[in-house]
Amino acid sequence: MVYDLWYWTGIPGRGEFVRLALEAAGLPYRDRAREKNGEDAMLRDMRAHPQFPPFAPPYLVAGDLVIAQTANILLYLGEQHGLAPDDVAGRLWVNQLQLTIADMVTEAHDTHHPVASGLYYEDQQEEAQRRADDFRNARMPKFLGYFDAILAARGEWLAGGKRWTYADLSLFGLVDGLLYAFPKRMATLARQYPHVFALHERIAALAELQDYQRSDRRVAYGDGIFRHYRELDAA
Amino acid sequence: MVYDLWYWTGIPGRGEFVRLALEAAGLPYRDRAREKNGEDAMLRDMRAHPQFPPFAPPYLVAGDLVIAQTANILLYLGEQHGLAPDDVAGRLWVNQLQLTIADMVTEAHDTHHPVASGLYYEDQQEEAQRRADDFRNARMPKFLGYFDAILAARGEWLAGGKRWTYADLSLFGLVDGLLYAFPKRMATLARQYPHVFALHERIAALAELQDYQRSDRRVAYGDGIFRHYRELDAA
Repeated sequence: MVYDLWYWTGIPGRGEFVRLALEAAGLPYRDRAREKNGEDAMLRDMRAHPQFPPFAPPYLVAGDLVIAQTANILLYLGEQHGLAPDDVAGRLWVNQLQLTIADMVTEAHDTHHPVASGLYYEDQQEEAQRRADDFRNARMPKFLGYFDAILAARGEWLAGGKRWTYADLSLFGLVDGLLYAFPKRMATLARQYPHVFALHERIAALAELQDYQRSDRRVAYGDGIFRHYRELDAA
Repeated sequence: MVYDLWYWTGIPGRGEFVRLALEAAGLPYRDRAREKNGEDAMLRDMRAHPQFPPFAPPYLVAGDLVIAQTANILLYLGEQHGLAPDDVAGRLWVNQLQLTIADMVTEAHDTHHPVASGLYYEDQQEEAQRRADDFRNARMPKFLGYFDAILAARGEWLAGGKRWTYADLSLFGLVDGLLYAFPKRMATLARQYPHVFALHERIAALAELQDYQRSDRRVAYGDGIFRHYRELDAA
């Protein structure tokens, strides 16, 4: 089966977490909205599944299945393709980690859009300054410290074992986005949470992801979830 | 097995979504942090699971399993006790709905804490005013309209069929919290999204939940995720 991934073009965003799993697992897929007139097609396609409507992209069409919510898509891919342990404890653990990663992704987004997604950054810049200060000083250490302690206890991968899971790929995606958005702050935190940064390096070096990272299938950062505003960053 | 639920005392919060599932399914559980010295015990207990540490409450201890993240707990309870369809499509659909409900819960919280969870409301009241305006005018119609269309298409319950799933219980919990926090706005939206409000009535009337709703096992609203500030509400 060839999967159809639908996500906004022009930003890695939450679609990137699905792409990383599809690419690292070597699964065939089409990135549908990135085809010609793709975003128009996506808006039409979203209305074409009245029984399983997505609330928002990303969503994955897998034969008769229409699956939305990033963590839900990854739960499905994990089960279908062995990208997470298959015992109950391991499967729930990886889903739990993915949901915690998703929470931090949302908070990273809200640093530049603390008032409304529908408004420009410039129209909420003062609020963004306050929220970003709190994110850098309170939330980044709390989240990254949490993942660091897990890796310190379990070894190379978040679920232990000898192979990455989709949560490891997603932690890579999260750290990668934070490195783009908050380079000064991340340089400080790299010294405090070395296991998290080592995992980022380990995933970046995976043989399975070399072709992807050099390809134009990978979307560049821009005005998406992870944005770099110099005024929102600090050591 | 008797489940151990751990969650902050004094607010319904995210623990309430787990409680509703445990209560409606008639599953024996202890609400551990609500016992004597319970919050101190919870902070100790959270450090006592180095292999599966929760990032934050709520979490459920089920024999050897330690399960955190509300949607993950409900996924587990749904599978163990038939609180969601057991085919792949239905199971993923209910998880997807739960994650969308969780997104709206987070946004409801952020109306009164748009800058930082660690600060008082009074220290972010101006920002809260702007964020609550957007939540009421843009986000509430978008989310409630989404759930309303699903119920209009599928009938009494979000996954169709003749019985509630845990996502129906959670949509009840969400609507109930919004009715407490934004009574004026919800009075307007009740006319536009009648299916969502009918589901709230239907769950409130479930025989399985009558004893719970009258008991002190149900926590009253207060300074939690769903808060009522008159200045943040409007028709």
